[in-house]
Amino acid sequence: MEISPYLRRANYYETDQMSIVHHSNYFRYFEEARIEFMHAIGCDVKDMEKLGIIIPNVDAYAKYIKTIVFYKLMQIETKLVKFNGAKMVFEYIIKFADTNEVAATGHTTHCFVNNEHKPMSIKHTFPDIYNRLKENIKN
Amino acid sequence: MEISPYLRRANYYETDQMSIVHHSNYFRYFEEARIEFMHAIGCDVKDMEKLGIIIPNVDAYAKYIKTIVFYKLMQIETKLVKFNGAKMVFEYIIKFADTNEVAATGHTTHCFVNNEHKPMSIKHTFPDIYNRLKENIKN
Amino acid sequence: MEISPYLRRANYYETDQMSIVHHSNYFRYFEEARIEFMHAIGCDVKDMEKLGIIIPNVDAYAKYIKTIVFYKLMQIETKLVKFNGAKMVFEYIIKFADTNEVAATGHTTHCFVNNEHKPMSIKHTFPDIYNRLKENIKN
Amino acid sequence: MEISPYLRRANYYETDQMSIVHHSNYFRYFEEARIEFMHAIGCDVKDMEKLGIIIPNVDAYAKYIKTIVFYKLMQIETKLVKFNGAKMVFEYIIKFADTNEVAATGHTTHCFVNNEHKPMSIKHTFPDIYNRLKENIKN
Repeated sequence: MEISPYLRRANYYETDQMSIVHHSNYFRYFEEARIEFMHAIGCDVKDMEKLGIIIPNVDAYAKYIKTIVFYKLMQIETKLVKFNGAKMVFEYIIKFADTNEVAATGHTTHCFVNNEHKPMSIKHTFPDIYNRLKENIKN
Repeated sequence: MEISPYLRRANYYETDQMSIVHHSNYFRYFEEARIEFMHAIGCDVKDMEKLGIIIPNVDAYAKYIKTIVFYKLMQIETKLVKFNGAKMVFEYIIKFADTNEVAATGHTTHCFVNNEHKPMSIKHTFPDIYNRLKENIKN
Repeated sequence: MEISPYLRRANYYETDQMSIVHHSNYFRYFEEARIEFMHAIGCDVKDMEKLGIIIPNVDAYAKYIKTIVFYKLMQIETKLVKFNGAKMVFEYIIKFADTNEVAATGHTTHCFVNNEHKPMSIKHTFPDIYNRLKENIKN
Repeated sequence: MEISPYLRRANYYETDQMSIVHHSNYFRYFEEARIEFMHAIGCDVKDMEKLGIIIPNVDAYAKYIKTIVFYKLMQIETKLVKFNGAKMVFEYIIKFADTNEVAATGHTTHCFVNNEHKPMSIKHTFPDIYNRLKENIKN
């Protein structure tokens, strides 16, 4: 399944006094892109939380290549690179929509926890979600 | 009861490309100051949430008088000006700690809701909290 | 000129532990909508800053009517209600895109300052921008 | 020189609907701790920017070990582990102030750029700052 990249402008309030987007906001861009990706493959995060599947971060990394300025249109590509039922890893590329240049790359690791924040595998408890994620792994 | 003002530096990530603190962050400063005020008068917000008392905003206002720059130390005065068991109104003054000049003023209105987000009065259900808040109203 | 409302989903990172969008973020939504409004009427904020016109907030107000939850699609209407060359006032209505119900209203006041953060009127210095703003006032 | 860890409570607005601090905020905690560290060793970030030394992020990483809840007091240890005049790397440990347990670790890489955002080495242009940073490297 081919997932469209996520489009997004840099907001004014996301800039800092360097006149560029503050580095912490890239993790928010990654999250927005990941949530749209999950939605697109039929694993809507809102619906999963209703089923009692919470997906916290285990780690997060961003590499800042070109600075992003206010109102710049970005195109964020999200790729699920690993998933085994208990953990998953996403990779991201933020490009400038006009030039296709890479502004940043990154990855995040996530686990699955229940409402009591206990780690779990969704392999046997949620086979449909498990399968949809499995089918969308790309290396 | 005399409550000490809340002290707080402006963080780098709170500035925007005007090289001043972004106006939305003042509402976060107000919240920090209000939470410390509530804690100081024995109405800890964390404890109240454990009892099933949630305190959302009904409105919020800020007036920006002098711009706040990075690393500036602020002193925030919080005053509970109205409370009737169902609603409360706070007023805030943000001053520069060094000169005592007023940087901003504001107010927020809050109601009390239960875990199902239904409005409630805490007058009869939580008389201790009710009394502590009543005693700390200043006009 | 009829300006389309600004469409925007509530992001995960904008929620707080009440499981609703944190009240400070509404001012960021207002800003996004205002910047799109300015762009649509030919007064692009990025271009204005390049000309040396900075537009800080003088005040900001929000009234929270219905809580906004994660991934909810909002439609934000922006109206320029006052403008005299030195100051302007915007009003906002945040509606749920599906039901058209009002989630919040608000207003912000802005002045114009130069690169040294000195207040100025743009009436004589930037007549084109002045006229475009004048033409788009609605009461 | 022994630098005290940076103390900081988790704010309400930093939580998300998982009822924990949103993972993007850890990078803001790292920044606050780094800025205090720089200040403590005599390399104040505000002063450096006045001299025309801007310190953007080259990358940033966080590992989330234990979730941080609202109002929890954290103690953040910052260590400068690499510095060569052109780049520097910091490592961070976020601990709970009461139990000393590790909540998160992370690192960030930074370069030095001038006001035109051109990379530079501060070795010869700012020998005092260079020396102070050199003296505070820990491995």
